[in-house]
Amino acid sequence: MHFELISHDKSSKARAGLLHTDHGVIETPIFMPVGTGGSVKGVHQKELSEDIHAQIILGNTYHLFLRPGTEIIEKAGGLHKFISWDRPMLTDSGGYQVYSLSGSRKINEEGVKFQSHIDGSYHFFTPERAIEIQRSIGADIIMAFDECTPYPCDYNYAKKSMQMTHRWLHRCFEAFNATESKYGYNQSLFPIVQGSTYKDLRTESAETIASFGAEGNAIGGLSVGEPEDELYEMTEHVCAILPSDKPRYLMGVGTPKNLLECIALGIDMFDCVMPSRNARHGMLFTENGTINIKNEKWATDFSPIDSESPVWVDQVYSKAYLRHLIKTGENLGIQIATIHNLSFYLRLMKEAREKIKLGEFSPWKEKMVKQLSQRL
Amino acid sequence: MHFELISHDKSSKARAGLLHTDHGVIETPIFMPVGTGGSVKGVHQKELSEDIHAQIILGNTYHLFLRPGTEIIEKAGGLHKFISWDRPMLTDSGGYQVYSLSGSRKINEEGVKFQSHIDGSYHFFTPERAIEIQRSIGADIIMAFDECTPYPCDYNYAKKSMQMTHRWLHRCFEAFNATESKYGYNQSLFPIVQGSTYKDLRTESAETIASFGAEGNAIGGLSVGEPEDELYEMTEHVCAILPSDKPRYLMGVGTPKNLLECIALGIDMFDCVMPSRNARHGMLFTENGTINIKNEKWATDFSPIDSESPVWVDQVYSKAYLRHLIKTGENLGIQIATIHNLSFYLRLMKEAREKIKLGEFSPWKEKMVKQLSQRL
Repeated sequence: MHFELISHDKSSKARAGLLHTDHGVIETPIFMPVGTGGSVKGVHQKELSEDIHAQIILGNTYHLFLRPGTEIIEKAGGLHKFISWDRPMLTDSGGYQVYSLSGSRKINEEGVKFQSHIDGSYHFFTPERAIEIQRSIGADIIMAFDECTPYPCDYNYAKKSMQMTHRWLHRCFEAFNATESKYGYNQSLFPIVQGSTYKDLRTESAETIASFGAEGNAIGGLSVGEPEDELYEMTEHVCAILPSDKPRYLMGVGTPKNLLECIALGIDMFDCVMPSRNARHGMLFTENGTINIKNEKWATDFSPIDSESPVWVDQVYSKAYLRHLIKTGENLGIQIATIHNLSFYLRLMKEAREKIKLGEFSPWKEKMVKQLSQRL
Repeated sequence: MHFELISHDKSSKARAGLLHTDHGVIETPIFMPVGTGGSVKGVHQKELSEDIHAQIILGNTYHLFLRPGTEIIEKAGGLHKFISWDRPMLTDSGGYQVYSLSGSRKINEEGVKFQSHIDGSYHFFTPERAIEIQRSIGADIIMAFDECTPYPCDYNYAKKSMQMTHRWLHRCFEAFNATESKYGYNQSLFPIVQGSTYKDLRTESAETIASFGAEGNAIGGLSVGEPEDELYEMTEHVCAILPSDKPRYLMGVGTPKNLLECIALGIDMFDCVMPSRNARHGMLFTENGTINIKNEKWATDFSPIDSESPVWVDQVYSKAYLRHLIKTGENLGIQIATIHNLSFYLRLMKEAREKIKLGEFSPWKEKMVKQLSQRL
């Protein structure tokens, strides 16, 4: 993997780059649609590439480990082949879902024992096991096994947890370096900065993570309920410490506004379930603000879903029809809204890249942030 | 509307024709995918036309009346415009769903009072109202309001019900002839033969229906639980009475085998939820038999879903991946399986037409019926 910085904004930390992987080049800043269990919900892989122009998608190790399991993915020749996706892919380490989804969990120095949210079966994830599973899945970018602390988080717990995450990181890299990719292409391991909303912990964590000299670095434990100001403050603080010649990935963030603000702070990669999850509830993102398509006001609005969008679903279907589909629980409504939202996120990233290259990012961002926050 | 018969099979009653409507020509025999509430579940209109090659789709008056309601559909300029579908469309009369779905219902000579399965609200459908609603929806082919008797059905009830359906038919045609299409293109009203599984009642009903000289005729009240033999016996019997120069539509039928057998008896049009509903449960139709994709045996079968199918989903995705998606409840699994099944049904109809034109229908049908009944 090789990260090539091609442009820097004049009046912010925003930068545009190219992340070269064995499955192709990713233009940064980028947003990665979430393909939880091997599928971005309701969207064909063909639509992901042709309509949404996704350059990289994310898979969740927790979900994929439980179903279909690593044995089937290995037999398929890795997740790319299993799901018929030949562009880059990233997997998280499973940690976040273990904490947020599993029936019960017990953390100790060795790892995390947890109960499947599907059948109640018990499993044990360790840093070594998380690497092993991610070797089987075979994403281009894999993530270190960490503990993602909740918000708010007691200082002492945050500190202890962060220190354990750092110890786990050593074990992750040991396991990673002792193994090889199973499918003939390279995998890169990204470590994750933790430290909750405490500046001194974030400093310590960012310095520790930077010292590993990884091919990319991630910031975790944000967008978990903290005020927006703290998200930006921590992101800015950590970005200043993480190496600038490596991609920075802010995990689980966020709204279109969050993305633009964090690009300005030096973030290159994002993932979030928001555009796809909110789509399923009828919430549409547009460059002029958000639309709750369930509102009565759209019932007889037969204009295209988004007249300013180049995506075919936005031109072919009307707001009134999409409202009808979402209100009546039709799958097609979810499909249309998800394509709409994800393609909007990807176009926003594309425009951000262009503005960075033109040296016009900051004023554009200011204007967009205002527009994006409106409710239509 | 104009029905042009272009070919007859030598050794059966099968025929190939062209049904000319104001939204284009339908090649018969044809299968009509069911688009219940203005959407064929999980399938884009673009996929219906480009991947499935649907020539006509069906909408349900009951569902569309309840949601979004005729007011919105009228404001949109009819259902075609509302859902962005410019090919032919057919709506049923609402009768079948009133009997099968609604909370409670009370039938009398005037019509049917029923309770919405969605919000419990009360509504009253009469023959006149069913026509009025179908004028608002604006399908190319609309159906008479009838009572669809269950199976088994007491002879006296079947007879009384049939007679009422005939009286309702007079009222339907009166209402139809007294009104006009709202959207500038023609609508045709098809009457429906009833009479349960009683030959004498079917004779009486078919003769009555034939006497109306409608542009097409339908057979209802079959595929409601009766043995397959009775389905074929009644269909054959009624087909012999209904005019041969008008299309014959067998409502709610059926399996691929049912379709081929009934084409041989003189049926031109079919609709059924089976291909789309079964798809949602992981049941795939192929020309070599049915596949229950949930079966363990497909867990590591990485071959294409259907190597003999020209449809892209069948080539791009593997059986193991589709199994994973269906097992984990992913929408994408439903989407893939639905496109697979519907496109299979439409290809089967296309092949039937070709075989009729080549005079090879009957031997082909015999061979196919054996293949189709296998379980893979």
